[in-house]
Amino acid sequence: MPGTHDPQFDPDRDPHFDSALDLVLERVIDVPREAVWKAWTRPELLERWFCPAPWRVVDCEIDLRPGGVFRTEMRGPDGETSGGAGCWLEVVPNEKLVWTDALLPGFRPAPEPFFSAEIRLEAVGTRTRYTAIARHATSEARKRHEEMGFHEGWGRALDQLVALAPELDRA
Amino acid sequence: MPGTHDPQFDPDRDPHFDSALDLVLERVIDVPREAVWKAWTRPELLERWFCPAPWRVVDCEIDLRPGGVFRTEMRGPDGETSGGAGCWLEVVPNEKLVWTDALLPGFRPAPEPFFSAEIRLEAVGTRTRYTAIARHATSEARKRHEEMGFHEGWGRALDQLVALAPELDRA
Repeated sequence: MPGTHDPQFDPDRDPHFDSALDLVLERVIDVPREAVWKAWTRPELLERWFCPAPWRVVDCEIDLRPGGVFRTEMRGPDGETSGGAGCWLEVVPNEKLVWTDALLPGFRPAPEPFFSAEIRLEAVGTRTRYTAIARHATSEARKRHEEMGFHEGWGRALDQLVALAPELDRA
Repeated sequence: MPGTHDPQFDPDRDPHFDSALDLVLERVIDVPREAVWKAWTRPELLERWFCPAPWRVVDCEIDLRPGGVFRTEMRGPDGETSGGAGCWLEVVPNEKLVWTDALLPGFRPAPEPFFSAEIRLEAVGTRTRYTAIARHATSEARKRHEEMGFHEGWGRALDQLVALAPELDRA
């Protein structure tokens, strides 16, 4: 299945990794990591790939600093809506992005926390080893996220990012 | 009552302040802010003031960087225990400390989130305007924290920090 995690992922590189609580998607993609970074951090670009079709991001707000807002609003083919606000936790240009929905902008605890996400970008020649880790509080939350289609959904979104690559170089 | 919040606190300085969700303790203390910073960030010093007597901190772990552990273990006069682990979110030496119990070390959502805290230190001559803000997800959580004795407890802890000041200069 495209988008499932890669056996090369090495939990030993991550002291906080917990296979009972985390989900991982890892792929090497033919996109330079600077372009991946742009796709993740500019709202007008993120809107074009972040949500697997036929759903789409109809609004996005990014204040790229710890505690700054990361908000997306998504709409389904029949007008259903989804999304919400969280905040960024760690921002290392072209290398690492961490955000969570467990804290709102300004670091206030959120009423309905679900997961924190870490995106790592490692250069592999001109390509990028892309690792997305979703961390949960409980194994139940991990399972729910898996059953919501984490691997397929995040994989298809990543396919959309890859398809956008020719434009990202010029963006 | 010592330790209640100071009417000089200006919510307009904080775009995320919400009086329905936040608790504030603000005082000007006769301790230089560099000394306050030491008291907050060195486990062997924090253990001496952080918990109002007769409770005391019996163990403390601090990895002072975003995502790093902040763990305290407290013991009451009859051997009761309390405490837990959270992580730091923002670390600006001598100026600002933010941590939360809503995320564990490595930014994993915590099973039982309660609040995020922000400590601000502003120099007032050789003294320090000390502002502690506790942010909650809901007004119920704010109320519960208030009824647990937020103002009195954090105020008495701060008194203990002030009493430690002569030693902090040399620490």
